[in-house]
Amino acid sequence: MKITKDLYQSNLVLLTDFYQLTMAYAYWKSGKGEQEAVFNLFFRKHPFQGGFTLAAGLDYVVDFCKNFKFEKGDLEYLAGMKNKDKSPVFEQAFLEYLKNLAFTCDIDAVEEGTVVFPNAPLIRVRGPLIQCQLLETPLLNIINFQTLIATKAARINIAAQGEPVLEFGLRRAQGIDGALAASRAAYIGGCTSTSNVMAGKLFGIPVAGTHAHSWIISFETELEAFVAYADAFPDQCVFLVDTYDTLNGVKNAIKVGEILRSKGKEMVGIRIDSGDLAYFSTKARQLLDEAGFPDAKIIASNDLDEHIIASLKSQEADINVWGVGTKLVTAYDQPALGAVYKLSAIRMADGTWDPKVKVSQQLLKINIPGVHNVKRYFTKGKAIADMIYLEDQDIDPKSVVIIDPIDATRRKRLMPVYYQEEVLLKPIFKKGEKVYDLPTLDAVRNRAAEQLESLDKTHKRLVNPHLYPVGLEENLHHLRMELVLKAKKFDNGMD
Amino acid sequence: MKITKDLYQSNLVLLTDFYQLTMAYAYWKSGKGEQEAVFNLFFRKHPFQGGFTLAAGLDYVVDFCKNFKFEKGDLEYLAGMKNKDKSPVFEQAFLEYLKNLAFTCDIDAVEEGTVVFPNAPLIRVRGPLIQCQLLETPLLNIINFQTLIATKAARINIAAQGEPVLEFGLRRAQGIDGALAASRAAYIGGCTSTSNVMAGKLFGIPVAGTHAHSWIISFETELEAFVAYADAFPDQCVFLVDTYDTLNGVKNAIKVGEILRSKGKEMVGIRIDSGDLAYFSTKARQLLDEAGFPDAKIIASNDLDEHIIASLKSQEADINVWGVGTKLVTAYDQPALGAVYKLSAIRMADGTWDPKVKVSQQLLKINIPGVHNVKRYFTKGKAIADMIYLEDQDIDPKSVVIIDPIDATRRKRLMPVYYQEEVLLKPIFKKGEKVYDLPTLDAVRNRAAEQLESLDKTHKRLVNPHLYPVGLEENLHHLRMELVLKAKKFDNGMD
Repeated sequence: MKITKDLYQSNLVLLTDFYQLTMAYAYWKSGKGEQEAVFNLFFRKHPFQGGFTLAAGLDYVVDFCKNFKFEKGDLEYLAGMKNKDKSPVFEQAFLEYLKNLAFTCDIDAVEEGTVVFPNAPLIRVRGPLIQCQLLETPLLNIINFQTLIATKAARINIAAQGEPVLEFGLRRAQGIDGALAASRAAYIGGCTSTSNVMAGKLFGIPVAGTHAHSWIISFETELEAFVAYADAFPDQCVFLVDTYDTLNGVKNAIKVGEILRSKGKEMVGIRIDSGDLAYFSTKARQLLDEAGFPDAKIIASNDLDEHIIASLKSQEADINVWGVGTKLVTAYDQPALGAVYKLSAIRMADGTWDPKVKVSQQLLKINIPGVHNVKRYFTKGKAIADMIYLEDQDIDPKSVVIIDPIDATRRKRLMPVYYQEEVLLKPIFKKGEKVYDLPTLDAVRNRAAEQLESLDKTHKRLVNPHLYPVGLEENLHHLRMELVLKAKKFDNGMD
Repeated sequence: MKITKDLYQSNLVLLTDFYQLTMAYAYWKSGKGEQEAVFNLFFRKHPFQGGFTLAAGLDYVVDFCKNFKFEKGDLEYLAGMKNKDKSPVFEQAFLEYLKNLAFTCDIDAVEEGTVVFPNAPLIRVRGPLIQCQLLETPLLNIINFQTLIATKAARINIAAQGEPVLEFGLRRAQGIDGALAASRAAYIGGCTSTSNVMAGKLFGIPVAGTHAHSWIISFETELEAFVAYADAFPDQCVFLVDTYDTLNGVKNAIKVGEILRSKGKEMVGIRIDSGDLAYFSTKARQLLDEAGFPDAKIIASNDLDEHIIASLKSQEADINVWGVGTKLVTAYDQPALGAVYKLSAIRMADGTWDPKVKVSQQLLKINIPGVHNVKRYFTKGKAIADMIYLEDQDIDPKSVVIIDPIDATRRKRLMPVYYQEEVLLKPIFKKGEKVYDLPTLDAVRNRAAEQLESLDKTHKRLVNPHLYPVGLEENLHHLRMELVLKAKKFDNGMD
């Protein structure tokens, strides 16, 4: 029953925290369920101590919203929930309400493959409180993970300096989607292929792979194993050389490379999966070159991440192709992004928006109120700053000031008239209708590459990156401060 | 299309690394495809620097194997794969072979909820090389993740010393299964409930949850929000008190608790989700006690893991229920287990087994050869040692010696005649037929609790645990050494 089709025959509307349903019920009961609200999905800190984040997962979000519907089995499950006194948790009338509930929200979001920064919304949901609330958990689940992995992949590809990076994390990934969604996000982030055949089939990602140590061991000798493999794949031979003795393995690969050549074929290369990769790759390169195989590629793998790749590069390891698995698909050094989804405005009876903040003892944790959007300014194709602004605020094209959301003494004056600009949140759904054409995965991947290109290289440094300027437009800054000071009582901030 | 039913309408047979398919093809082409082999799934080191690991995921494995079948769409996808010269990667006859391929392996495995140790197999697969190979990646994906999370959950529950631990990691989990399978594994490891409604529906895990900060903020005042919530859930009121000011929030909770009491209801408790949990929980306890609510529970959350819980316990924080999310479901401090799947024997033409090792420069990485199993010895209900032994080896009931697989100077003499024993690998499939009745999830959870109980507390220490003795039976040790020395040439081990 568990992992195959039966598991997923259900619509995913129950893939949410129970408290979204208890709140939905309580909103419904208190008559607030249809009150219009605005929620923003954003994160507070780049992952991996980096200088950028690459947004991913919108495609899944669109799919989720399109299929947002409580079905019979979902409602039966909820109807069966009981309080301690055996009374039902949810009134029948509420379950009827859920049964008839249709998705009617506006969703605005940054496109997949967009470079994004802390505090600015990746997704803005506007609609009835109940629906906004029910979307919170699935949206966070999807965006948190895919954005995390796309970012990790981009960092690894930056370290590889344009050389191909193959993703093969399936065996260590966190579950089935932990693998599938990771393969997709890794491709967006610049990886050239995946080992995951199902990801290949579902998403059209190129798949790659050759053989394992078990292949070699199942034969009497390594040479026999290489010969048999070359028989099956004369055009795609990458020999795994480290089963017994790496350099001896390279010599066996060369022997079979010569046999292939005698048949008009050319081996693709060798793979080293253990040991000192800098040492063995250099030695292997030498052997291959001396034997007349200067074009044979050396593929390296073994717990690689951006830092190890950068280190191998600095040691001038002779590696041409990088295989990454565990560290990429689990985002090993920071396995969760920590994006949040916060209420920023409620529509009042008179039609105006009441901006909202959730006060915290740390300014970092206080959200940005109101119905806001993000504008990116460019000059000569390079991004220079992001401005978070209230959508109904007039922006002076000659001069605006943006203010850092944490440290209000950090400010920057911008002259919009001299820049190109892009509004980052694009309409995806209007009143529940999809108004956005989802790009192909390759188009998303291209956008990601262009976006990274538009970013100054100082922001892409793997360690201690330069901070990209993102600020609140002055009026929004003042609104936020005012609301925070109003919410915090004078003697209340330092408990 | 992506995350809802369509995605999973496919059988999961392609949820594998491409190299399993290229090897399958090459085995088939070289005539070795049906040769019988034995592979073992095991890990080399406990996660989290711990002293035990809790096996989980077998239920999914059984499901995967039962549904192992190449379907039309899978074969069409493979048929469409092309070499650079546009010729198909796989011959049509091979695809026919896959089409007719039925699962015929023997699978022996430790039951879910069993405490396991490094180097001993969790799963042993015996069958045709091609099938063994195709199972490698999905089995690793499933077992690696669920075992990791069950272990993490057990550690967190040990830290909570029997107090309830609620799992609510969905929003930060690594994808959909990263959440669902994690909720399942967390329940096995001792958690009492999940926030994930879909996990509740699919697996029958109790679900729990109350309200979020957004609930509070959507009202003019916190008190109004509490009152409205109490109206909807008079029997299940847990008030989140830290939206504006934690101690003031407790006072508001008390006010509403008194209103409830006047109606014959009793509030369940309060939740604190930020700030200094030790400080605020103690202050909150005082306020609640003084107001006549000594039974109101205090639930705490905010990036908790076993170490923070242990620290809060040592500070005598007044916390009764622990909410854990991100750190549990992503196994934050070690997000992958790193189990491997290694060939240990090949059946020869004469019917005998040829034991196999994959040599490595580190003894730690050299697998255990042959067709082996694991026996656990108990005395007075406590586990005293695990012995890995060749299945066809006679074991002297009076005295056996087990030898540490890494440090051969660590040895232990056992007297089986005086102990109870349990053979850990149980038959699950025989020739492709399921011969094992899957226990319910609650039975698995009970087994886990009993297994942990059977382990001396020194092995369950969160930091610097005492090492549980696991060794190779003497004959197996000698076989392994012999094979390693044969495979390593004399001057070859120190390159």
